Amino acid sequence: MTLTVLLAAGHGVFEEYDAPLRAAFAAQGLDAALVTDAAPESVDYIVYAPSSPVQDFAPFTRCRAVLSLWAGVERIVANPTLTQPLARMVDPSLTQGMVEYVTGHVLRYHLGLDRPASKWAPLVPPLAQDRRVGFLGLGELGRACAQALVALGFDVAGWSRSPRAVAGIACHHGADGLRKVLQCSEILVTLLPDTPATANILNAQTLAQLPRGARIINPGRGTLVEDAALLAALDTGQIAAATLDVFRTEPLPAEHPYWAHPSVTVTPHIAAATRPDTASAVIAANIARVQAGQPLLHEVSRSAGY
Amino acid sequence: MTLTVLLAAGHGVFEEYDAPLRAAFAAQGLDAALVTDAAPESVDYIVYAPSSPVQDFAPFTRCRAVLSLWAGVERIVANPTLTQPLARMVDPSLTQGMVEYVTGHVLRYHLGLDRPASKWAPLVPPLAQDRRVGFLGLGELGRACAQALVALGFDVAGWSRSPRAVAGIACHHGADGLRKVLQCSEILVTLLPDTPATANILNAQTLAQLPRGARIINPGRGTLVEDAALLAALDTGQIAAATLDVFRTEPLPAEHPYWAHPSVTVTPHIAAATRPDTASAVIAANIARVQAGQPLLHEVSRSAGY
Repeated sequence: MTLTVLLAAGHGVFEEYDAPLRAAFAAQGLDAALVTDAAPESVDYIVYAPSSPVQDFAPFTRCRAVLSLWAGVERIVANPTLTQPLARMVDPSLTQGMVEYVTGHVLRYHLGLDRPASKWAPLVPPLAQDRRVGFLGLGELGRACAQALVALGFDVAGWSRSPRAVAGIACHHGADGLRKVLQCSEILVTLLPDTPATANILNAQTLAQLPRGARIINPGRGTLVEDAALLAALDTGQIAAATLDVFRTEPLPAEHPYWAHPSVTVTPHIAAATRPDTASAVIAANIARVQAGQPLLHEVSRSAGY
Repeated sequence: MTLTVLLAAGHGVFEEYDAPLRAAFAAQGLDAALVTDAAPESVDYIVYAPSSPVQDFAPFTRCRAVLSLWAGVERIVANPTLTQPLARMVDPSLTQGMVEYVTGHVLRYHLGLDRPASKWAPLVPPLAQDRRVGFLGLGELGRACAQALVALGFDVAGWSRSPRAVAGIACHHGADGLRKVLQCSEILVTLLPDTPATANILNAQTLAQLPRGARIINPGRGTLVEDAALLAALDTGQIAAATLDVFRTEPLPAEHPYWAHPSVTVTPHIAAATRPDTASAVIAANIARVQAGQPLLHEVSRSAGY
C-alpha cells in the first residue's frame, strides 16, 4: 500500500525538497506519495520544519514518526500534542558544513584576517598549538568541529553537561568544568542544544570568566547568549569580537544592535544548512527502517529535549 | 676545541637568535661560540640570512656548512663565491605556520568571509567537497597544505615539475599537467621555489586558463607572479581576488598598486615565519650531525636551485 508522507513546512520548502525526497524514496524502494495536504488520519509520516502551519499533531492518529528537517528541535519538542516519535536531522553534510564554518571563523580570529595590513609591519601570529580554543557542547557537531581543530594543531578543551571523552581534547563537565574551560578559551565556540539548562549560559558572570579579549563564535542556538550581557562585554573589551549565526528572533531584526556593532559579525543562520539531497536520503532511509520494523534513528528524548 | 659559529644576518637577528641558538647548542652538547664577527678563516659554521653584509664566502676556508635561516635560498644559491655546502631551513613550525595561513585564507575565500552580511540574506556556500583547490608546487610546504585541505574535505589537485604522488590529491606534472590543474582551480595556491623555470609562471596566458573569478593565494615567492598581468586580470574580473604574502621587492613599496587594490590582500611575508626556538634546534642538530661525520640535512642542490 502506498505510504502517505506529509511535507509540513513553510513557504518554499516544497519546491526545494519535492524532487530530492521523491528520488530518495525511489532509491530506498519506498512506495510513498509526497503531499503537502492530506486528511490527518491518512498520513503515515510527517517530514517537518517548524515554519509549518501544522502545530497540532493530535489528529495524525496513524502517523508512525515525525522527521524533522532541522537539527534543532526546540520549536517542536515541547509541543504537548506531539505523541509520535520525533527524529531530529543528522545530515552528514550538515556536520561537514558546520566543521567548515567553525574552522574558517576560528582561523579568521586566530590569524587576524579581519585586519588586512595597510603597511609593511610583520606581526606573526602564534602557532595553533599555542592558541586555546574552547567548546561548550561536545555532541555530534561539537565533537566534529573540535576534532578538525585538533587536526590543525589547536589546543582544544571542551565542556559538556555529562562526562565525555574525545581523543585529543581536554574534556570537562559540570559547573566546575565549565569555569575551567571558560578560563582558558581565547576563542570560544558554543554548540549546545537549546534546553532550559543551557539558556543564557553565556551571561555577565560566565563572560567575565573568559580571558580578557576572548572571541566568541555561536553557531549553536540564539538562546545560549544573553544578548545584553554580550553587548556590554564587547563594549568594555572583555570580549574582543563575536561571530553569531543564530538569534532569539530570526531573521535578526534590522534594528538589532548586533548588525551595526563593529566587533560583531552576523551570519544569517547558515553555519549548518541542511542540504536537500543529503537530508532527503537520511529521511527516506529512516522511514525505510521503521517500515522494516527497525527502531527510528536519531530519536529525540522528550525529557532531555534533544 | 670550541667551534666558531658566525651568525651572519642583518639588524635585529642577533638579538632574536642569540639566546635560542646558545640554548640549542647546549642541548646538542656542542661546544660552540656564537659570534657576529670573526676572522673568516677561523669560522667553522655560518648561520645565514640574506640580510647579512657577508656576500663573499671565499675567505671562509674552514667553514664546513652554511645554514640558512630562511626556507627560500634564491638570494644565496647563485653566489659564485659559495662553495661550502648550503642547508635550507626546514623548520617544523614553519611548515605548521604555512598550513595555518593557507588553510585560513582558502576557507576565507571558500566561505566568503570578506563580505560580512549587512542584512538577512541566507546564502549557503558549497561544501568543501564541491570546491576545487589547486596547488602549484608539491614540495614539503605544498604537500602539507594540500593534505590539510584534503582532511577538511576539499577537492584538491596539484602540479609539480617532476611527477609526484600525494595521497588524496590529483597530481599532475609537465606543461599539459599545468594546464589541467589551472583549468579546474577555483582557488589556486602557489608554493613553488624561485628558480628560472618558475619565474612568472602566473602570467597573462596561465591566468587566462583559470576558471573565471578564480582566487589566488601566493605565499611562495614574489617572482612566481607577473605583477602587471595579475593586476590586469583582477581588473577584468578573470581573477576575483588575490592574497599575496611575497613580493619582488620587500618591504612592498608604499606606492605599489597592490596596497590600494580592493581585490588584493597584502600580508607582509608572514605566511611561514621562522620561529627562533624551533629554527635554532634544527640548526644545532644539523651542526651536530656534521660534527659526528653524518651528511648535512636539507642540503641545497646547486643545479636545481633548491
